[in-house]
Amino acid sequence: MPKTENSQWYVEQVADGEIHGHALTATLVQGRSSFQEYAIVVSPLFGKMLVLDGDTQSAALDERIYHELLVHPACAARGAVRRALILGGAEGASLRELLKVQGMVKATMVDIDGVVVDACRRHLPEWSDGAFDDPRSELIVGDAKAYIENTDEHFDVILGDLTEPLEDSPSYGLHTVSFYKKIRERLSPGGFYALQASMAGPHNHATHARMIATLRAAFPSVAPYSTYVPAFDTEWGYALCGDDVDAMSDAASSAADAHAKACALRCYDGQTHRRAFNLPRYLRDAYEREIRVFE
Amino acid sequence: MPKTENSQWYVEQVADGEIHGHALTATLVQGRSSFQEYAIVVSPLFGKMLVLDGDTQSAALDERIYHELLVHPACAARGAVRRALILGGAEGASLRELLKVQGMVKATMVDIDGVVVDACRRHLPEWSDGAFDDPRSELIVGDAKAYIENTDEHFDVILGDLTEPLEDSPSYGLHTVSFYKKIRERLSPGGFYALQASMAGPHNHATHARMIATLRAAFPSVAPYSTYVPAFDTEWGYALCGDDVDAMSDAASSAADAHAKACALRCYDGQTHRRAFNLPRYLRDAYEREIRVFE
Amino acid sequence: MPKTENSQWYVEQVADGEIHGHALTATLVQGRSSFQEYAIVVSPLFGKMLVLDGDTQSAALDERIYHELLVHPACAARGAVRRALILGGAEGASLRELLKVQGMVKATMVDIDGVVVDACRRHLPEWSDGAFDDPRSELIVGDAKAYIENTDEHFDVILGDLTEPLEDSPSYGLHTVSFYKKIRERLSPGGFYALQASMAGPHNHATHARMIATLRAAFPSVAPYSTYVPAFDTEWGYALCGDDVDAMSDAASSAADAHAKACALRCYDGQTHRRAFNLPRYLRDAYEREIRVFE
Amino acid sequence: MPKTENSQWYVEQVADGEIHGHALTATLVQGRSSFQEYAIVVSPLFGKMLVLDGDTQSAALDERIYHELLVHPACAARGAVRRALILGGAEGASLRELLKVQGMVKATMVDIDGVVVDACRRHLPEWSDGAFDDPRSELIVGDAKAYIENTDEHFDVILGDLTEPLEDSPSYGLHTVSFYKKIRERLSPGGFYALQASMAGPHNHATHARMIATLRAAFPSVAPYSTYVPAFDTEWGYALCGDDVDAMSDAASSAADAHAKACALRCYDGQTHRRAFNLPRYLRDAYEREIRVFE
Repeated sequence: MPKTENSQWYVEQVADGEIHGHALTATLVQGRSSFQEYAIVVSPLFGKMLVLDGDTQSAALDERIYHELLVHPACAARGAVRRALILGGAEGASLRELLKVQGMVKATMVDIDGVVVDACRRHLPEWSDGAFDDPRSELIVGDAKAYIENTDEHFDVILGDLTEPLEDSPSYGLHTVSFYKKIRERLSPGGFYALQASMAGPHNHATHARMIATLRAAFPSVAPYSTYVPAFDTEWGYALCGDDVDAMSDAASSAADAHAKACALRCYDGQTHRRAFNLPRYLRDAYEREIRVFE
Repeated sequence: MPKTENSQWYVEQVADGEIHGHALTATLVQGRSSFQEYAIVVSPLFGKMLVLDGDTQSAALDERIYHELLVHPACAARGAVRRALILGGAEGASLRELLKVQGMVKATMVDIDGVVVDACRRHLPEWSDGAFDDPRSELIVGDAKAYIENTDEHFDVILGDLTEPLEDSPSYGLHTVSFYKKIRERLSPGGFYALQASMAGPHNHATHARMIATLRAAFPSVAPYSTYVPAFDTEWGYALCGDDVDAMSDAASSAADAHAKACALRCYDGQTHRRAFNLPRYLRDAYEREIRVFE
Repeated sequence: MPKTENSQWYVEQVADGEIHGHALTATLVQGRSSFQEYAIVVSPLFGKMLVLDGDTQSAALDERIYHELLVHPACAARGAVRRALILGGAEGASLRELLKVQGMVKATMVDIDGVVVDACRRHLPEWSDGAFDDPRSELIVGDAKAYIENTDEHFDVILGDLTEPLEDSPSYGLHTVSFYKKIRERLSPGGFYALQASMAGPHNHATHARMIATLRAAFPSVAPYSTYVPAFDTEWGYALCGDDVDAMSDAASSAADAHAKACALRCYDGQTHRRAFNLPRYLRDAYEREIRVFE
Repeated sequence: MPKTENSQWYVEQVADGEIHGHALTATLVQGRSSFQEYAIVVSPLFGKMLVLDGDTQSAALDERIYHELLVHPACAARGAVRRALILGGAEGASLRELLKVQGMVKATMVDIDGVVVDACRRHLPEWSDGAFDDPRSELIVGDAKAYIENTDEHFDVILGDLTEPLEDSPSYGLHTVSFYKKIRERLSPGGFYALQASMAGPHNHATHARMIATLRAAFPSVAPYSTYVPAFDTEWGYALCGDDVDAMSDAASSAADAHAKACALRCYDGQTHRRAFNLPRYLRDAYEREIRVFE
């Protein structure tokens, strides 16, 4: 039969009737943990990709965009971050970013799926880049919900690197008003909770808008932001939450620039900050319209 | 044989080894003009889509994002726009946007492919929304290059709604330093040339960066900008060119807000302006590195 | 965006998790009748293809294989065929084949979907090749079930060119024991009923086997046969039914050769007959095991 | 992002503009040997599949059809087979079939790609079913061409389980008139050479027809035959070659029945033999027209 250049493909259904297909040069690992199906595959364009339950979680090509934008706006806003907590965070890349922050004393990561964390440590060592072995790191394989409910600690920054509140998702309970309030109680004074907050394109931001409404019911101040992540095939949403978030001022951009320089970042800086927090009109309109919250 | 919900698909190769597939509910027209293959198809998510030579040109879902961002930054910057010219512009949506501008006296569109323009008028009437029948409009089916070289007129705003300078493209000659200089000569004092400037994602901005370098060899002042357009599967680049482009100031954002209000726009406004002109770091880095121009 | 050679595809789901994709060069017509969705498309390999409800019905490349094998074994077995009836038969190709038979006086076709018949006459004229205009032809747009139940005529050969007894199919009622018996009553002495009888591959012959069991409950003698049809992506099943079917003898092969010569056929002949009626072991085993019938 | 049931696919290009996609539940191994890319994957419908250079070689669903039809017509025709040789045969399934033959003394397999043979032994043990460990088996990892040219042995049956004479294929030199003659010299009196002989569908039999012409230039008697193999997406061709092949007689069918019973086969028997050797008309016509041989 005639040869074809690529015969293995990873096909992601990005919406009803819409697929994105990636030719694969390798499948490094593929399996099923107690919580999800997982695979680490390699595409010529995206490089290594972590796929959970059929959805791309991060890719070598652009994981820095995703992870720097998740971690650093909160850190830049807070200033002195000494204790930080990641809910989820399998690949260890959010942990890697936290450890770049000057003065970090302890960065704790709580992820429920030890099998996936191990697969990432083995097959995606560039993602964590030694972070799991750093003496400032603490990895807890366990339920983030239980952790938040039982810990007495306070954190300067908490990061939500979790799957979204989709039906059937084990993360559903981590995205309610009441649980957001519990997270808030674990912040030190002036601390921030930053989280990935689902798709934020013109056509797929319904979950994002509802997450923002839910966060606003739990935090005094919520600044949504977004950036384009090619591996996600869409603009991606985040939110920065705290008692008083100042994201739009020139001072915030300047802080971003200073923080980026101190941490030697590659994507996030003042101009990227302004791009991320100045949102498309369809999102601003959606926030105004959305009145439902995740309970 | 078992039924499948969708059997007709439009599959776009968005990069080597990367495809995007759209299920189709209808193919309104499909043919070949003297210049290109064209089709107007319907996808459940994107609605009607114009496809030229296998590439999506615009889609009902998000054509407003693309066209408002092409047309209005130049108009807002110029202020009083009375005569404007579109190079290309098949669908008539750029023309539609120009006619929203207060005080517009004459908007001329020069597109080489009358067959495609007719197909758009017939099957995409919402795109042009009557613009072709407006007494202020002039449609010239002809070569934009020849038009620029032969006309004596001057325009307050010229828009490049052309395909990119890819090999084999009939638009190649419209993207050289010398031709950009000829466009500049057709601007009235204080006028601007704004154009779509190819893909601007982290992974596909090589042509864009070279277009910016080429524009900078022809215009004293060039401000690149970009926005995410789902139908293009990537961040999309533009450039605003003139003698002295002020895109980053608060005044520019305020002008955008005022212009958006006067024209009753749906996407472009001051905040969208800031988002578009504050560029990702990979683009800023690419502009610094790029030294080749299209000759 | 980079060009791709083919952007329009027809994707058929041939089994759970198995798809066959055909690049398309044209979509000649696409619509929805009162009974089904229909499209006539063009693939470089298969040429024109008739697609109903997402399933390929016939293709220029191999429609002769399908239609000759449906029509001629029955005609060769019967010998003198003067009156024949087609249940279904949209494209008119079964009618075309019947009219090749020497001595044919009247060939009647009853198809419920006049819209699809018209689309085939217009866009697939090579399929019917003038058959609809032949004075010996009679086209009745109507329900084949009602026709059989109400007619007093008898036919030397009746052909079932119908969709299969799948759930939700309008043809379901044409594949029961009781209706097969009614068909039998409309045969002249020594007449035959031949029908397409669904997929007959190693992996997809469940419906076929049950159809054979159902036919055997209605006819004294049933000879299943099959042939590979590329456009169907599988071996395809048929059955020849009557009072006493002799398909396996040397006389039957010789009759096929003589008939093929008289009709100037391109596919069917004695050797093809032997190939078709000598069945794979998995089918013979399946017939022995299958005890359910369609009621 | 919305979940999709299957995200890993194996997509085979079966012709220009024609693809077949298999959803995958696992990739057991994937790599590159000195000779080819190889993968063993699992599809819900086909089960385990061996893929070499993007082409399906065999699948759990139907490998018995392919391998029984390759091995047993030659063995049934020869009668007393005591020494047999397989050229190629990676999976060990042809070897498994040979060992079923009563009176087999020694079955030798010569395959150039030890890496692929090992992968098959490890991941497809059901294919070889212990054959590699049978004391009557001899596995030689080496060049089949050199083996034939250097051995002094004679074999009652030689089997060609090789890739086809496609450009760039390492098997090209094993399909010339001169090499076929060398194979013939290694047959014991009354011996047969049987080989897989490429695609034999209505649309893709050009290589097959030329192989038959080439074989006919080297052997006094050549009987082509074919069967449908779903995993290959087409009718598949073979040839049985010797001094005097009798495939069409009733005696040949009876011998097939007796042989099948003695070997406890699941697919091949007398009726399957008749089906295989009574060929479609398009193949018979192609053999008459084809005058080129592989030199």
